[in-house]
Amino acid sequence: MKRAKHRSDCPTNFTLEILGDSWSLLIIRDLAFKGKSYYGDFLDSDEKISTNILANRLNMLEVERIIKKTQDPNKKSKIIYRLTNKGLDLLPTLIEATLWGAKYYPKHNAPKKFIIRARDNRVEFIKEIRTKLKGKI
Amino acid sequence: MKRAKHRSDCPTNFTLEILGDSWSLLIIRDLAFKGKSYYGDFLDSDEKISTNILANRLNMLEVERIIKKTQDPNKKSKIIYRLTNKGLDLLPTLIEATLWGAKYYPKHNAPKKFIIRARDNRVEFIKEIRTKLKGKI
Repeated sequence: MKRAKHRSDCPTNFTLEILGDSWSLLIIRDLAFKGKSYYGDFLDSDEKISTNILANRLNMLEVERIIKKTQDPNKKSKIIYRLTNKGLDLLPTLIEATLWGAKYYPKHNAPKKFIIRARDNRVEFIKEIRTKLKGKI
Repeated sequence: MKRAKHRSDCPTNFTLEILGDSWSLLIIRDLAFKGKSYYGDFLDSDEKISTNILANRLNMLEVERIIKKTQDPNKKSKIIYRLTNKGLDLLPTLIEATLWGAKYYPKHNAPKKFIIRARDNRVEFIKEIRTKLKGKI
């Protein structure tokens, strides 16, 4: 899955080569904001990702060390997905992308409180989510 | 070009439906960070975007009112592309995506000073770029 060659050495391009599609950041959103961690949870999201795209993206995100798989301690056959530190470092990008969407799509269904905190108390908000998710790693 | 129906009403999804590909944010990078404004300038970037993808993305970004076209005052037949206010509001997302890339792709070729300012002096840095680009609108 690793790319032999990048299109350029620009850091913006690097991020887009990994995450520049319309699904990968939604999986990261589910992990970061929605408390989701199972394959079936991601399938259940409103956007209705197909199982083949989901499997492909989870594999890519694991290869890129943005997420990692662990065994569910309560049910050994079940796999839990978690963000790694590299994945948690995507929180600022994810939040800014979400704030832009919230501003230009007034019909959005994100809780008002979430948007206001992300916008007005950004650093603390990110730290809080990070701490919560770190506890799970 | 307008989507009749969104996959969901999530604001993150809204942003990804518009910008979730590996090229659109590179055009915005060129406009925001590289002082580019002509069709040929975008074609010249290191990533070597093809002319059909470029034309498609410029059209989409214009339909979404993220960029706008104006006539070059010095050469009427030439078109200048500029970020709108909606486009300028993507600066935080663009910068966070770039910082993540810079952190995890140490071989990147962005000026050190740029990365350090974006990381350590974010608000002021965004304001500065905004003011510079606003002068051009």
